Amino acid sequence: MKDIYQEALELHEKTKGKLEVQLKVPLEESYDLSLAYTPGVAQPCREIAKNKDDVYKYTWKQNSVAVVSDGTAVLGLGDIGPEAAMPVMEGKAVLFKKFGNIDAVPICLDTKDPQEIIRTVKAIAPTFGGINLEDISAPRCVEIERTLINELDIPVFHDDQHGTAIVVTAGLLNALKVVHKKIEDITVVVSGTGAAGSSIIKMIHALGVKEIYGFNINGIVTREDYDQYDFLTQELTEITNSQAKRMTMAEAMKEADVFIGVSAPGVLTPEMVKSMKENPIVFAMANPEPEIPYQDAIDAGVAVMGTGRSDYPNQINNVLAFPGLFRGALDVRARKISEGMKLAAAHGLASLVSDEELSPTYVIPNALDPRVSQIVAQAVAKKAIEEGLAR
Amino acid sequence: MKDIYQEALELHEKTKGKLEVQLKVPLEESYDLSLAYTPGVAQPCREIAKNKDDVYKYTWKQNSVAVVSDGTAVLGLGDIGPEAAMPVMEGKAVLFKKFGNIDAVPICLDTKDPQEIIRTVKAIAPTFGGINLEDISAPRCVEIERTLINELDIPVFHDDQHGTAIVVTAGLLNALKVVHKKIEDITVVVSGTGAAGSSIIKMIHALGVKEIYGFNINGIVTREDYDQYDFLTQELTEITNSQAKRMTMAEAMKEADVFIGVSAPGVLTPEMVKSMKENPIVFAMANPEPEIPYQDAIDAGVAVMGTGRSDYPNQINNVLAFPGLFRGALDVRARKISEGMKLAAAHGLASLVSDEELSPTYVIPNALDPRVSQIVAQAVAKKAIEEGLAR
Repeated sequence: MKDIYQEALELHEKTKGKLEVQLKVPLEESYDLSLAYTPGVAQPCREIAKNKDDVYKYTWKQNSVAVVSDGTAVLGLGDIGPEAAMPVMEGKAVLFKKFGNIDAVPICLDTKDPQEIIRTVKAIAPTFGGINLEDISAPRCVEIERTLINELDIPVFHDDQHGTAIVVTAGLLNALKVVHKKIEDITVVVSGTGAAGSSIIKMIHALGVKEIYGFNINGIVTREDYDQYDFLTQELTEITNSQAKRMTMAEAMKEADVFIGVSAPGVLTPEMVKSMKENPIVFAMANPEPEIPYQDAIDAGVAVMGTGRSDYPNQINNVLAFPGLFRGALDVRARKISEGMKLAAAHGLASLVSDEELSPTYVIPNALDPRVSQIVAQAVAKKAIEEGLAR
Repeated sequence: MKDIYQEALELHEKTKGKLEVQLKVPLEESYDLSLAYTPGVAQPCREIAKNKDDVYKYTWKQNSVAVVSDGTAVLGLGDIGPEAAMPVMEGKAVLFKKFGNIDAVPICLDTKDPQEIIRTVKAIAPTFGGINLEDISAPRCVEIERTLINELDIPVFHDDQHGTAIVVTAGLLNALKVVHKKIEDITVVVSGTGAAGSSIIKMIHALGVKEIYGFNINGIVTREDYDQYDFLTQELTEITNSQAKRMTMAEAMKEADVFIGVSAPGVLTPEMVKSMKENPIVFAMANPEPEIPYQDAIDAGVAVMGTGRSDYPNQINNVLAFPGLFRGALDVRARKISEGMKLAAAHGLASLVSDEELSPTYVIPNALDPRVSQIVAQAVAKKAIEEGLAR
């Protein structure tokens, strides 16, 4: 079998990148030029000059998203720079088109300075209906996203933070049904408190989880160490580890109903799984090797197991969230993507698995299920309208 | 007959903008995703991280151009802002694709500060194979373009300056053949010394025109008024009006073999045309109404007449230059677009009209002639290689 990496490399060279621009207007005769360009084009320009929101009516802004990265946290490859980040951002744009029918373009930035990134995104914002931040290292990504959300009137969304959180939340809602537990009764251990982990913690906390233990490379997060943390981890001390316990992950796992890993292979052992509460749920999303090998987790008695991989059941894949989320936001010309809209996306995604279909190996829809982005988009658009965020 | 402006407006609304993004890779099965996105995409990322120039090999950078505007000088509409500029920039991108098979995207900027524009374009530059500046007011556009040319290693080209200059130069070369005059013997009056006019003056000066009189709204450009000018006009004092004459345009026209107008309707009268040297050449490109009505010029004895309009012979249209120019630059991954490459484009364009075809009503190819961008691209690519500007 040909190596997948070699095959991918050859594909990228052969197709000369993965994206192209296409026309939506005819351009065969001189008169077509007069409509698409001068002199006719002056008329939509005049209308938009009179009423700025008409830019949604007459231009691609209604359906376009910039996929913005500084190349500092690309896949598991780290800080490889804006040029080397391009294949991922193009790939992301490919997913936007395929699953959300959204016209996304990569924008890879030759700067790592958060203020400069913020300035640049604000400068190019008139062109786009939304901004998807991607593969920007934590905690800078959070600062950048929050500032842009506040200062722009189009949706800004950092997928590495919230995309995973939405899909994990959807999976968790369904997994709890499988094991007949209520969200307000469970204890959750989250391994990894960076961009994705902190967003997961906030989302499941908002949904009613009472006790969450967050672990990072230095151990358990506790308010007693507040002064040693970056602002992102400091925020977590308010909603995790309510009794400020100092314990190892092995000790915490004895209290846990659910393990959520966005960290590294080997973090979770079969012994820890065996020590968990009855019918444990494990979402081990380290890529490509999960925190515990799939079969080891099953053998240790996990009731519902999810990973980031496509070759096992219950794949926690961001593509289940972001295309539908932006589709819904663009459909109503939303000014932002709110917490409510993200939760609506999670509930919409979870609802695709009917009670009859629900099983330990099917708590989350398949990434290629064509209904996914539509149902997520509908839920998100409805919530945006309810919250007064639609134009 | 339906009004062209109304028809253009309806077209823009119906097609929801004029551009879309399309995939160049298959994406039907889970395995396709593994090649276009994770995990396979990691391989081109790794290769580019090792060798930055491989970004041309594996991504859309090899064929992409950003069409950048701040919306300060859009068509004849003036400073209408970045949103209202979008239809023009999308239209420009449409022309890039249609005539140059180049994937261009509009980037409309929410800033008018030259330094901020420069910073923003530098920040997004890793994403694109070239930058086309568009509809940025003079003389700011010149400062922005020069700085970016110096500081970036991809082609940066302000079409409003040089696009017109290239096509005018091509037309002039052929028109001089029609009237049997040599370029070093002629005197040229240029009406309008902004972005386009100053670039035209520089290009025909470089080609050997010995005497050029430049006129703007304050009258003739002369080195005696140097201190009153912006830097762009100051530069023109070195290559125009060699004897620092103070005269009206009517007086200057008595010396002129050629009139080139990038100014306003009514500037040129039949009387002025009649006072020109034998077999006068007039390129009157004010849009949509030329400096002198077409028939008035013919009646006054013009030997070769060109305008910016598609409904008369000899249309001086930028679309004859920029798609082929960027096509050639991208084909050899050029680091910049040099003066030599622009002149090569003009000569290439002029060469498309054979001596047999050449006539007073055919000195410049038709905008829809499919050979245009190819011949311009070849000339430009060849020159880039000669000058050591290819990668």
